[in-house]
Amino acid sequence: MPIIFAANIESAAILLDLFIMLAAAKLLAELFERLKQPDVVGEILAGVIIGPSLLGWVQPSQIINILAEFGVIFLLFTVGLETKPQAIFTVGRRALLVGLLGVVLPFVAGYFIAVAWGGSFAESMFIGAALVATSVGITARVLGALGLLDSQVARIILGAAVIDDVLGLIILSLVSAVSQGDISYIALAKTGGAAILFVAFVALVGSRIINGLAPFIERLHLGKPFFTLGLILCLGLSVASVYVGVAAIIGAFLAGMALAEATEDDHKMHRLTSGVTEFLVPFFLVSIGMQLDLQIFRDGSVVTFAILLTVLAVATKFFGGGLGAYGLPRREMAQIGIGMVPRGEVGIVVAQIGLGLGVIGQQFFAAVLFMAVATTLIAPPFIKMLFAEDKDRDGIADEPSLENVRDDFSRIG
Amino acid sequence: MPIIFAANIESAAILLDLFIMLAAAKLLAELFERLKQPDVVGEILAGVIIGPSLLGWVQPSQIINILAEFGVIFLLFTVGLETKPQAIFTVGRRALLVGLLGVVLPFVAGYFIAVAWGGSFAESMFIGAALVATSVGITARVLGALGLLDSQVARIILGAAVIDDVLGLIILSLVSAVSQGDISYIALAKTGGAAILFVAFVALVGSRIINGLAPFIERLHLGKPFFTLGLILCLGLSVASVYVGVAAIIGAFLAGMALAEATEDDHKMHRLTSGVTEFLVPFFLVSIGMQLDLQIFRDGSVVTFAILLTVLAVATKFFGGGLGAYGLPRREMAQIGIGMVPRGEVGIVVAQIGLGLGVIGQQFFAAVLFMAVATTLIAPPFIKMLFAEDKDRDGIADEPSLENVRDDFSRIG
Repeated sequence: MPIIFAANIESAAILLDLFIMLAAAKLLAELFERLKQPDVVGEILAGVIIGPSLLGWVQPSQIINILAEFGVIFLLFTVGLETKPQAIFTVGRRALLVGLLGVVLPFVAGYFIAVAWGGSFAESMFIGAALVATSVGITARVLGALGLLDSQVARIILGAAVIDDVLGLIILSLVSAVSQGDISYIALAKTGGAAILFVAFVALVGSRIINGLAPFIERLHLGKPFFTLGLILCLGLSVASVYVGVAAIIGAFLAGMALAEATEDDHKMHRLTSGVTEFLVPFFLVSIGMQLDLQIFRDGSVVTFAILLTVLAVATKFFGGGLGAYGLPRREMAQIGIGMVPRGEVGIVVAQIGLGLGVIGQQFFAAVLFMAVATTLIAPPFIKMLFAEDKDRDGIADEPSLENVRDDFSRIG
Repeated sequence: MPIIFAANIESAAILLDLFIMLAAAKLLAELFERLKQPDVVGEILAGVIIGPSLLGWVQPSQIINILAEFGVIFLLFTVGLETKPQAIFTVGRRALLVGLLGVVLPFVAGYFIAVAWGGSFAESMFIGAALVATSVGITARVLGALGLLDSQVARIILGAAVIDDVLGLIILSLVSAVSQGDISYIALAKTGGAAILFVAFVALVGSRIINGLAPFIERLHLGKPFFTLGLILCLGLSVASVYVGVAAIIGAFLAGMALAEATEDDHKMHRLTSGVTEFLVPFFLVSIGMQLDLQIFRDGSVVTFAILLTVLAVATKFFGGGLGAYGLPRREMAQIGIGMVPRGEVGIVVAQIGLGLGVIGQQFFAAVLFMAVATTLIAPPFIKMLFAEDKDRDGIADEPSLENVRDDFSRIG
């Protein structure tokens, strides 16, 4: 037997977990690509399979959570890099309406179904809050794979999802405070106000500052000045977001958006960032799958509630988001509605906080997790279907990844 | 005061640590670049400054250790990608001699100075073992920044450092076993044999397998097949290495080497990998700096011993490595000798294991840390100086980074 050291074995166990996660994710992604299904779904399913519910090869751990969080942070940073502020502002009013209706309907529906199922006031508020926030990462990943991140509909979805996230996290703050008996309206107003001011400030001013500083940034002696600045800004604004009271991913998205115009033609910077994202995102997707505990669904009433909650989550977001786009062609209304459906990580975060505060029980928790994963699994094929024609109309080659699209540009440029 | 959640705050605290580490590293790297000093030194110094010894802004943590380990793993993977097996084999005999002499002299010297300073047999064996392994990452980083990774001298250094690492970790296995009273020679022989067989097998056969499979790999539906395969192979062989009994970084280096020929012209793959490396390496360098506890050096005898140990570490590696290169021009002997001087992470790992086993005391531990950091700080300016002429002779532009060199190739190609 070889002699191995504790220090090495501990980190080898972690490396082994990450190796299994990455290999399983890529294996199922390859399989799903061959079946013409979105690779995102394959990577989440990889998590269900290797996680505690089925094979139990990998257990959730703090390290995995942190890497998953990095994954979603860099994913949103990349999405931000594709989002020029001007493009969002042109769809601003529309995105605001889509976001608002896509928040109100799910929240109300979630609250009342939880009450009907015997939930307390606080518990039901949490279920409502968990239904609010769209997981823009999933939709962005699917649209990116179709090469459609640049379309007007995509911009409305991304803009609305940002508004959604901000509203969702403000609601979460309020619900948490209320559930803890803290109902100082001044404190609540301060939280909400600070969050809105922060987002508005970075979105409106950040890009101008970066554009103004660009000549100085280029003169830095660092080999990859914009990439380096991007990393620092991405981590820095993520931290700042949390201290202001919104999710870290919002800061990452804003950091990307602030750099979007200055780095538009900097393919090197995009490629370097893409390397980091491609490495980290699988940990995010796989760990979502790993969080689904299949055991608790032996209880039939949990299953019924979870399915009902999922149906409501899909319907209210689809119609809420779609209605917000009223006036656009019906097909685009449907695209926007379906694009808002995935809940993913934010719903899971809400459920975890509710569980941590002792406000929601294990079964509501399981149902919310089911809803978050199910909406994330259900949406991509429909997104792909509803957007398929646009892809062909644009004359873009089959199966273009974000990467390939950029390659095409470099070849042209 | 905004309402913040425990879950968010915890991960925000980690994000804040990483933000400070990255920002400090890049700030000092920029400063050192402007002073025409190696950025590596700047990044390590950043760790000393923000670490517990001085400002105390960031404390070492498990997360930071894991990211640092990832950093050095991907650094060695990148180095491996630049190392075509054929190129190493052509310098194989020379590298073996350099590696062997660079192991024997430091080990013997370390053992005897520790005995002279009152160390026990086991303690002194550990001090000897800590002096053995070259931190090839630092030298590779400096040579890469000079655009000289492709030179014959660089290949000898890298080859010898790999041999060094393997021998160093085998010695560590033996010393640990002896210090724990486990002196089954059969077990020791098995450990050593398994390690040598593993390295030889991957080095000799890995590249051929990958080259043979290349047409199939290219036909995968994954967007970035070689990059994805690289990530999986890098993590997989790192894990395998530890289970075989050698350091994870050796597996990462071998994974890169196996892919070196197949991905020679795949600039996309190199750029994507470089993104991951550039993100993670600062955590490795900063955390080395953070481990230096300046407090313990108030004890004058620790300082004296630490300085003596450092002088011995530099001298024995310089002359041992240099002697191994006997027959080459004297200038190249000096280049090879100085290239082997940095100890960095492996010395620190040895010291940590010795401390963990209760074999070496706090003061010997501090002295080894001092030696590891000091050799890492001392070597780069000398490496740069001794290699400066080669750079000019090759007609490569001033301050070319690994990245720029690749850019030059893409433009030519």
